[in-house]
Amino acid sequence: MTGRFISLEGGEGVGKSTQLARLAEVLRARGLTVTVTREPGGSEGAEAIRRLLLEGDAGRWNARAEALLFAAARADHVARTILPAVAAGDIVLCDRFLDSSRAYQGAAGGLADADIVELHRVGSDGVLPDRTLLLHLPAEEAAARSAARDMGGADRIGGRDAAYHAAVAAAFAGFAAAEPDRFRTVDARGSAAEVTDRLVGALADLLP
Amino acid sequence: MTGRFISLEGGEGVGKSTQLARLAEVLRARGLTVTVTREPGGSEGAEAIRRLLLEGDAGRWNARAEALLFAAARADHVARTILPAVAAGDIVLCDRFLDSSRAYQGAAGGLADADIVELHRVGSDGVLPDRTLLLHLPAEEAAARSAARDMGGADRIGGRDAAYHAAVAAAFAGFAAAEPDRFRTVDARGSAAEVTDRLVGALADLLP
Repeated sequence: MTGRFISLEGGEGVGKSTQLARLAEVLRARGLTVTVTREPGGSEGAEAIRRLLLEGDAGRWNARAEALLFAAARADHVARTILPAVAAGDIVLCDRFLDSSRAYQGAAGGLADADIVELHRVGSDGVLPDRTLLLHLPAEEAAARSAARDMGGADRIGGRDAAYHAAVAAAFAGFAAAEPDRFRTVDARGSAAEVTDRLVGALADLLP
Repeated sequence: MTGRFISLEGGEGVGKSTQLARLAEVLRARGLTVTVTREPGGSEGAEAIRRLLLEGDAGRWNARAEALLFAAARADHVARTILPAVAAGDIVLCDRFLDSSRAYQGAAGGLADADIVELHRVGSDGVLPDRTLLLHLPAEEAAARSAARDMGGADRIGGRDAAYHAAVAAAFAGFAAAEPDRFRTVDARGSAAEVTDRLVGALADLLP
């Protein structure tokens, strides 16, 4: 069979991590081999870069340095984890990928989208997922979930303000509209089981 | 007065570090304010990236991830050290800059020169030194000096083979030929004092 590369995207608090784990479980129950990974990170070098990106205060890196660090981590992750797993026939489920850089460092961070895409071309030959699942929540619901989760202290990105997160959500919606073949926008409201069913449905054409 | 940004380039073993310190001393004796810095590094964030780049074995990063990490470090270094110092009127002397990435990750590492330059545009608006001093030694002399110095163990880049270092030297020579206004190629043979005199002479038109 042929491996597949699937990314899961969305703003803070939409339930990506929970759904990624549930989706992996459903696919494994069907007998598929699943590699679960995440960005930034997902390979030894990329995890070292992740620590640089997520530690320290919000102003540690400017948007340009941050975009280059994400692209460097992604280059390592693509070459050493994602492409080998897809070549082996795995279903690769990735928590965040290029579109998160386009939304966070691009639309919300002030860098040109074309520049973010260009960094990915140089770093990773512009590899794109076969399918990108965009989890969507109305803004007020996402904010409430994110606030509840961040009671213990937000990291450098989760801790930013509402306008920033609104810009991120608008950017994701725009990317999905521009690439309807790659993207599926999935309603993240309702029970976890309902959302997982929707995600599995959004992969129906790609799975054996 | 107007600040200046001067980079010092060349392969392993040409005496860059020694000459940078000597050059700073001469310029300070003339009453100039000198900021001495280096790449990768030269700012807090860039020094953290430097540790990722120089630690570990030679295969830790592929050429693409390495180029992105160098560009990320450079973006931080330019924004937080070099441009503020030049704006304050300093003479900034930098041990390696963009041309080292073009030579090492580009010519010797297999990346397209245009891609390295593109990463620098995205990261640092393509800022170039007012003058780049290229220290040049015949290959056999550079190899002998480098071998003597590396007796205690080479780092990830110093430890590579002779063909790699020859490719680097040829690349630097090509860059200098293509940009004669920015580059001055300086003979690195003879006593340290003789070489320093040549470097000072190669800056005559830029200094008060």
